[in-house]
Amino acid sequence: MADTIQRPTTSRTTRSSTIPAEETTNTGPVALDGVTTPPTVDVASLGRQLLGTWADVRIEARKLSARPDMQGIPGLSMAEHRTRVFGQLKVLADNGHVLRAFPTHLGGKDDHGGNIAGFEELVMADPSLQIKGGVQWGLFGAAVLHLGTTKHHDKYLPDIMNLTVPGAFAMTEIGHGSDVASIGTTATFDPETDEFVINTPFRAAWKDYLGNAAKDGIAAVLFAKLITQGVNHGVHAFYLPIRDENGEFLPGVGGEDDGLKGGLNGIDNGRLHFDHVRIPRENLLNRYGDVTADGTYSSPISSPGRRFFTMLGTLVQGRVSLDGAATAASALALTIAITYGNQRRQFTAGSPTDEEVILDYQRHQRRLLPRLATTYAQTFAHDDFLVKFDGVFSGKADTDADRQDLETLAAALKPLSTWHALDTLQESREACGGAGFMAANRLVGLRADLDVYATFEGDNNVLLQLVAKRLLTDYSRKFAKADPGALALFVVQQAAGRAYHGSGLRSLAQLMTDRGSTARSVGALRDTDLQRELLTDRVEAMIADVAGKLRGATKLPKKDAADLFNAHQNELIEAARAHAELLQWEAFTRALEKTEDPGTKQVLTWLRDLFGLGLVEKNLAWYLIHGRLSAKRAQAVTAYIDRLIARIRPHAQDLVDAFGYTQDHLRAPIASGIERERQDEARGYYADLRASGNAPREEKASKK
Amino acid sequence: MADTIQRPTTSRTTRSSTIPAEETTNTGPVALDGVTTPPTVDVASLGRQLLGTWADVRIEARKLSARPDMQGIPGLSMAEHRTRVFGQLKVLADNGHVLRAFPTHLGGKDDHGGNIAGFEELVMADPSLQIKGGVQWGLFGAAVLHLGTTKHHDKYLPDIMNLTVPGAFAMTEIGHGSDVASIGTTATFDPETDEFVINTPFRAAWKDYLGNAAKDGIAAVLFAKLITQGVNHGVHAFYLPIRDENGEFLPGVGGEDDGLKGGLNGIDNGRLHFDHVRIPRENLLNRYGDVTADGTYSSPISSPGRRFFTMLGTLVQGRVSLDGAATAASALALTIAITYGNQRRQFTAGSPTDEEVILDYQRHQRRLLPRLATTYAQTFAHDDFLVKFDGVFSGKADTDADRQDLETLAAALKPLSTWHALDTLQESREACGGAGFMAANRLVGLRADLDVYATFEGDNNVLLQLVAKRLLTDYSRKFAKADPGALALFVVQQAAGRAYHGSGLRSLAQLMTDRGSTARSVGALRDTDLQRELLTDRVEAMIADVAGKLRGATKLPKKDAADLFNAHQNELIEAARAHAELLQWEAFTRALEKTEDPGTKQVLTWLRDLFGLGLVEKNLAWYLIHGRLSAKRAQAVTAYIDRLIARIRPHAQDLVDAFGYTQDHLRAPIASGIERERQDEARGYYADLRASGNAPREEKASKK
Repeated sequence: MADTIQRPTTSRTTRSSTIPAEETTNTGPVALDGVTTPPTVDVASLGRQLLGTWADVRIEARKLSARPDMQGIPGLSMAEHRTRVFGQLKVLADNGHVLRAFPTHLGGKDDHGGNIAGFEELVMADPSLQIKGGVQWGLFGAAVLHLGTTKHHDKYLPDIMNLTVPGAFAMTEIGHGSDVASIGTTATFDPETDEFVINTPFRAAWKDYLGNAAKDGIAAVLFAKLITQGVNHGVHAFYLPIRDENGEFLPGVGGEDDGLKGGLNGIDNGRLHFDHVRIPRENLLNRYGDVTADGTYSSPISSPGRRFFTMLGTLVQGRVSLDGAATAASALALTIAITYGNQRRQFTAGSPTDEEVILDYQRHQRRLLPRLATTYAQTFAHDDFLVKFDGVFSGKADTDADRQDLETLAAALKPLSTWHALDTLQESREACGGAGFMAANRLVGLRADLDVYATFEGDNNVLLQLVAKRLLTDYSRKFAKADPGALALFVVQQAAGRAYHGSGLRSLAQLMTDRGSTARSVGALRDTDLQRELLTDRVEAMIADVAGKLRGATKLPKKDAADLFNAHQNELIEAARAHAELLQWEAFTRALEKTEDPGTKQVLTWLRDLFGLGLVEKNLAWYLIHGRLSAKRAQAVTAYIDRLIARIRPHAQDLVDAFGYTQDHLRAPIASGIERERQDEARGYYADLRASGNAPREEKASKK
Repeated sequence: MADTIQRPTTSRTTRSSTIPAEETTNTGPVALDGVTTPPTVDVASLGRQLLGTWADVRIEARKLSARPDMQGIPGLSMAEHRTRVFGQLKVLADNGHVLRAFPTHLGGKDDHGGNIAGFEELVMADPSLQIKGGVQWGLFGAAVLHLGTTKHHDKYLPDIMNLTVPGAFAMTEIGHGSDVASIGTTATFDPETDEFVINTPFRAAWKDYLGNAAKDGIAAVLFAKLITQGVNHGVHAFYLPIRDENGEFLPGVGGEDDGLKGGLNGIDNGRLHFDHVRIPRENLLNRYGDVTADGTYSSPISSPGRRFFTMLGTLVQGRVSLDGAATAASALALTIAITYGNQRRQFTAGSPTDEEVILDYQRHQRRLLPRLATTYAQTFAHDDFLVKFDGVFSGKADTDADRQDLETLAAALKPLSTWHALDTLQESREACGGAGFMAANRLVGLRADLDVYATFEGDNNVLLQLVAKRLLTDYSRKFAKADPGALALFVVQQAAGRAYHGSGLRSLAQLMTDRGSTARSVGALRDTDLQRELLTDRVEAMIADVAGKLRGATKLPKKDAADLFNAHQNELIEAARAHAELLQWEAFTRALEKTEDPGTKQVLTWLRDLFGLGLVEKNLAWYLIHGRLSAKRAQAVTAYIDRLIARIRPHAQDLVDAFGYTQDHLRAPIASGIERERQDEARGYYADLRASGNAPREEKASKK
């Protein structure tokens, strides 16, 4: 971007003076950070760090997203948009972009992490392209790869990889979204003909919202309850042709077009239903469950529950790529809004003639810079997540525990980053005013497309509840061997910890003293260990608290136990969110250790502090109620955040430039420098007018 | 709606048992509310109360919004949508819908409040229709009416009223959005020809985002700086033809189409610029400023600042109608989401066969019911706002103070309700899962259209800052006659009040005792006076706090004073928000006094408590830090909110039904009863299967 967007040097010079003198004396950079001159950010090296583990793949993918023919065009009709995206998918198939995830013996690269990294970057071009590619290769193809066996790979994958066979991923039903285990579609084995009979027993069991189902799909991976010999073995996946060579539904298959959606209209989502459709027995994708010719069922995983979660676990990559794409979209939005905020001028404040650059307003900074800090945290957390994913799928680190951790990570990070993207796109759009509402400036379109990321691949609230259950399990495991007395004591201690007049966390007492000045408290808040302690303690205490309340649940009748659990559902989900935020904070903190340039490290540390203390500020009441922070220290949190923001503000442009998007990615006229040109022209006009002596006098002045 | 949607009686019966027994013994309806049986809501009488002062007008307007030909169709191209909306505008002109605001001698009704009430209801049909109508009659026509004089009324209004002359409201410029005082367009009087010369001196002074400018507009009311005899008299409005009978721009006029937007694509927004365009002197809309043939300027308002704000004040109706339309859209969204949540079933919790209705999940209730409480508060606050507006514009209560209050009310309420609409539409859409993302179910389209409500007719943050400045002025006026010692003493007292170990508010100490049980604290939180005290105290203390910090500003150099103000901008805006929330709470509380049916009053009181305590919970850290609530009481706030939600839940359907929207307004298949049909069909299927003895056994069971 450096070549097309000029740095806002003028406004940058004036900015440091906006920190009130009183505050700089108290807690200025010298006193707090041991830095004698204002730090500078090394945009190039920071940019490399942000690209992460698969930097080269991302750079290549960004070249692809920069191609006009791969990009979305606002205002296309749904039909035109679908056609365009299908054509772009062919480009991906032809240029080998899609091969990375597939087996080497079929021409692939067995590069799971790199594959996701490459697909995520397509969100810049058009989210419909990212998601339609995800449907074809990340869901439909991946299901054949991970749930099928060699015979399926050899038979189906080549045509899937080269897009000869576009396919739907037929899991979700109208009646069941995130509760996949309860789907109604059945696959009943008929030993007479050696076939499965696929059937949709009622309207709620129609498959719905399936990409490729309305128009392009020739086949589908279908999820149905496998029934053989009178036993329901739960959800399994089947390969199923759905359309003939003329694009007509095969006998027994029916469907509808979902029509217009809130976004992603380049994808032909639709519904499918089946009236006793017969498929050969070998179409069962039989890696985790098989049926012999006589109808005998077998599985390498004896527990139906664990089998189900293992099968679904192979499809975690959808959540991985949503996390990455949502984070990239947030970065793009902030690049647009911060660049514009550095050029746009509104209202005169301190000067009689010059208007302020809007990013110099405190409120504007408060709106954008904390979201920038979160986006950084998510960028680093996502790279760690992708490494974990790659470890599991490459087999490098693929224990049961690894898979469970990966699942939990996905269920924790995807909700936060997808919500953050919607929030950031909206705040960025509002921060750009009416210009932000113009389709040409990208923000509204991206927001519309990303809206559904919050509920697909698992509803965000349902995913966070999964995380909470995992945390509860870990918690009870911790006490599995403890006698009831130990547990009771623990609960009592927790209760004591919650008393508002309690002394709070010991480490806090060590680091801060009541007699300390605000500045000294502020100093302590910069401490990495203290931030970790505050964030960790909250997660643990919340989980312990709910665990205590749920302790008797196992002894209750099922209905009462469910009611008890439900009465604490909101707390549980909030605990899961706190856990996910902690994971992001830890990732940001690890990234700091890898940052070598001192100036960059300083600015990133402020940004990490802003993220960490922002989490504390958001939950300040909890810290106060549970005696973790005194009221005085709680006030210091907000005061320090204000200072951090003022300190980070001069580096805001560098921090978004480091994301590395060019004008070909931004494609937002308001972030192209045009606003600066207009402002300069206007200021030049008035300066000339004043110099000419022909400027009209002001009415007020003329009355004197 | 009652005729098409069955009441969820089944789930309603089971719901009351979801309140844990422990809590009902403690603080059940009997103990707390003196009600011995669960209350019922009288939906019809509540519905009448919600319709407010202009109930008849609203009922008529709703008939219009229920007409298919007046409604938007998702998926139209921009060109088709524009044509459709223009046609709908003609219907409004022809049926007299638009006449209410205009003078009786021109065939109008001089009914200002009713006019706005009627237009707001059009948001149900299509927000593009509401806003395009608002541009034509509420901005373009209203500017001629309020800024022009009789000669302008007689000459222009008839053609504006009947849509012979569609017009643009040319105020906003590319370079200046909410800062209207700084626009660059000039109108220089030329006594030689008795004309004004309209000129756009640079690109940033192009008028932008103007409805009717891209295509339909034949004329415009243009805002420009009036310059005569070498003096700039500030912004004034002019009537200006822009296109000829063939739709071509007149000489000297140019423009561009804004093209596709994030929503409201039925409106032809565009840009205009002027190259020394000459218009007769009488085209100056001269109610608040006039120029004689020799170029002498005069105005009934001597202060240029007050004159500017008076002129802009006449255009407050835009903000009034956005507040109402945003509130109506929130009500519509919640009607859809709550109706669906009462029918949709997901996951089995307490039962082995039946899945739960999703609104029975605590998290789901937490997502929707507090937003319902806010929507009720806004509905009542909006009606009061409209009465105030009507008082000023009818002349019934039109003092300077009334106008200032109206301005402040508009600047306070419009930001909150427009943001709330976006938040509520989004939460409702997510609460409906994938179905919520389908355009057919309305939520995504409404959200896209209402997005810009947050920044047009005044950017929400800028408006809140106006409110804050008014609060600061009131505060300083309060102390204008006090000697410096009194002020200092006040500030000291404020500071004392803020100490976290302080005793807090006296009334609080009276109502709650530290020894009291949680239940007793909870009882106190229901108290109307206590809620008022908590909410009022926060606004006053926040303003006093900032006022104290800014006290020295007048003695500082302008730049330093601006920096000092800027360092507290965020706090100021938060104080303004707190003030606006208090206004909403007061309106809700006043409405309770007018509710006669005891059951309805009981449920509405819970809802008001949920709104009030929700505000306290949101700012709990503030109450803790400033010693207004002890930690123990702060915890009671959240506990009581949980109980309120469980208690309101059985009435949720009644509370949305009372908004009175029919299926013709909702037009969302998921809220039509179709979901219940599907759920019933599925449950029936499984019940029959179990009864038949042919149901497959579960794998787990079969292994035993």
